[in-house]
Amino acid sequence: MTTYRAPLAPKADKDTTRRHNLSLVLRSVHDEGETTRAAVAARSGLTRPAVSSLTEQLIECGFLTESGKTFSGQAGRPGTVLKVARTGHAGLGVEINVDYVSVCVVDLAGTERVRRIEHHDNRRIPAAEVIARAARIAAQAMDSAAEQDLQPAGAHLALPGLISAGTVRQAPNLGWNRVAVEGMFAQALSRLHRPTAHTAAGPAHRPIPVTTGNEADVAALAELWFGALGKIRTFLYLTGDIGIGGALVVDGELLRGAHGFAGEIGHVVVSQDGPPCRCGARGCLEQYAGLAALLRAAGLDETAGQDGAAELQRRAEGRDAQALAALEEAGRSLGLVLSGAVNLLDPAAIVLGGAYRGLMPWLGPPIAALLERRAVSGLWPATGDRLRAASRAADAARGSAALVVRDILADPLGYAQRAKAQARARSAT
Amino acid sequence: MTTYRAPLAPKADKDTTRRHNLSLVLRSVHDEGETTRAAVAARSGLTRPAVSSLTEQLIECGFLTESGKTFSGQAGRPGTVLKVARTGHAGLGVEINVDYVSVCVVDLAGTERVRRIEHHDNRRIPAAEVIARAARIAAQAMDSAAEQDLQPAGAHLALPGLISAGTVRQAPNLGWNRVAVEGMFAQALSRLHRPTAHTAAGPAHRPIPVTTGNEADVAALAELWFGALGKIRTFLYLTGDIGIGGALVVDGELLRGAHGFAGEIGHVVVSQDGPPCRCGARGCLEQYAGLAALLRAAGLDETAGQDGAAELQRRAEGRDAQALAALEEAGRSLGLVLSGAVNLLDPAAIVLGGAYRGLMPWLGPPIAALLERRAVSGLWPATGDRLRAASRAADAARGSAALVVRDILADPLGYAQRAKAQARARSAT
Repeated sequence: MTTYRAPLAPKADKDTTRRHNLSLVLRSVHDEGETTRAAVAARSGLTRPAVSSLTEQLIECGFLTESGKTFSGQAGRPGTVLKVARTGHAGLGVEINVDYVSVCVVDLAGTERVRRIEHHDNRRIPAAEVIARAARIAAQAMDSAAEQDLQPAGAHLALPGLISAGTVRQAPNLGWNRVAVEGMFAQALSRLHRPTAHTAAGPAHRPIPVTTGNEADVAALAELWFGALGKIRTFLYLTGDIGIGGALVVDGELLRGAHGFAGEIGHVVVSQDGPPCRCGARGCLEQYAGLAALLRAAGLDETAGQDGAAELQRRAEGRDAQALAALEEAGRSLGLVLSGAVNLLDPAAIVLGGAYRGLMPWLGPPIAALLERRAVSGLWPATGDRLRAASRAADAARGSAALVVRDILADPLGYAQRAKAQARARSAT
Repeated sequence: MTTYRAPLAPKADKDTTRRHNLSLVLRSVHDEGETTRAAVAARSGLTRPAVSSLTEQLIECGFLTESGKTFSGQAGRPGTVLKVARTGHAGLGVEINVDYVSVCVVDLAGTERVRRIEHHDNRRIPAAEVIARAARIAAQAMDSAAEQDLQPAGAHLALPGLISAGTVRQAPNLGWNRVAVEGMFAQALSRLHRPTAHTAAGPAHRPIPVTTGNEADVAALAELWFGALGKIRTFLYLTGDIGIGGALVVDGELLRGAHGFAGEIGHVVVSQDGPPCRCGARGCLEQYAGLAALLRAAGLDETAGQDGAAELQRRAEGRDAQALAALEEAGRSLGLVLSGAVNLLDPAAIVLGGAYRGLMPWLGPPIAALLERRAVSGLWPATGDRLRAASRAADAARGSAALVVRDILADPLGYAQRAKAQARARSAT
């Protein structure tokens, strides 16, 4: 039984129908990888002439390419193979995290084409400097992309914190409060990104639109799009870095909440009289299972970040008692909070990313034991591989870049029209 | 920034466009209460001739009525007033709870037209007997509806428990396990609901389709549709009865989870070494703030249900120390779990219904204090009336009945076609 969505959906008319169908054809080719007009028609339910007309427009606007021939044994013209364009339109993703900046360019197929990572302790540097550095890395990545004839249509910036309207409201582990990161990054990038000789005449000249969001959100989307979840489309995602990020994906869509801040699982209570947390409360999960807490409990430098996580993993592999005890305890706290989240949300899977990924051999068993004990029966069937480490191929920077591309796929005509209008406005000045 | 939904949406064509637009016009009239074709055209963006054609079909199928004239001062024909039909199509809602059965019939406008409530301790009676009694009450309600020329198009059955595919998998507070409630109820109802003289020729003859779901889910939808939430469309709903039911509404849609079981907030942990719970775990919220626990802590009969809640309220009003202490403690446990849920889900409001409604003067302050202390800043701004009691006009039976009606509004043509096909199949036999 379905319920209807208010406000009323806009009327369906010829224009919206064509826009919808352009997206339908483009996504159909995107999802298949390689296909023919006939297969798109069969899959989408559109007529062959409609698919041909839509395909022509998509090729003309640089979204699709055709190549080679598929010689069908049947009567009629052999179909040419359609693919999404591997040059031209692309997406740029930038992750600023506590101890690194990672930048990624993906093409329309979602394939990672450029990657730059730099490690710094971003807590010790003013926000403006971190942002300027991220913009420099992004500009270098755009130059590398241009050498492959890829022009990012936009950038998405991901950070660990509460973000709204392009501003980091708080990112306690970066020590940022009310930083207007989106504008600062866009400005720094547009100053830096001078066209290279290679792209002097290309669309890379124009300043690209920038959006901003939470890093766990896009890491979760990357897992959905590029991970190994198969048919699972409703899951809880945790990323263990200095803090703990969280995100919920429901039916393939991010659950953002009323203010866009959903997913702060790091601040769900483990023990109300526990140690004080940076958020102002006591006994939050982050104080038991955040990377800093884990490293401290294992007798390591709690500020060591990813290097610390690697060292913790080495010690656990070497069966160091203190490391094993720290992981066991953190796993129990994670299991306690996750069992509550399962009872509340009924996800089909729980995915642990970031520093947790490599630590799953030790965190996994206590989490699984708590889920078995505490999740309401039926909500967490004992069968199946539902508690899992994040995929190596899925991270926040790639998810960010892919988010830009998904936006194009959802409305290619709207995107092409906006790009044309921008070009016209530029040539008029 | 939007992300696209897979699987691909079906193609937009003339047929789906007309179905969509029929629903658009019907919902437009539904939402306005009284309106004219011109106003529907202005609101929906459809042309006047299109609205006229769509309106004719909706009148013909009994979804809309027109009455009177609106004499506009402008040129052209005066418009007649359109309303959704107040006779004919209707919805039947049935709530089976621990100590009562409530049945409601609503018309297409969502107005409650018939209500029957019977109080019994349903824990002491076999499930089959409870279901047969609910069907008897429903049949009586349908007879009363028929006297008002209302024929429910379907029934939705709501129960406190985990329900899937028409079966109560477990409802610990009713003591039900694996009860195929939907089939049992539908069969009992079709046996009972003989046409009255009044409806001998009407569509009330046919057995009506029955769906089944969780009572907190439909109570939350009733709050969304008939409560006082205003523009709030993302909220957490708790219903305190013998157990604790919960539901999440996100952007006006129920969050159901991977198996349809989301919302089991009663089994989120308060203290992992706490008292054993019926679910098999220890220290669940239900053991601290469920009605049975509350009554026990206040020195009352823990099985007294709604009568017990009324007595607890009287004692709190009389400033009985044990009652006040019990409510304070329960409020703190609710606040602890709700602050975690706020951090995870970022709702715009929390609504407490069922037995909690009358107890809000005492439960509210400790809950608010915990939210202030533990919700991540920004997630629960101190301003506004975001923690609130459920509306009196919104309950699970009315929500259930309205769910049937919303299904009609979402696709009136599809509904009319199915009804016609059923009638044809019947006359052929």
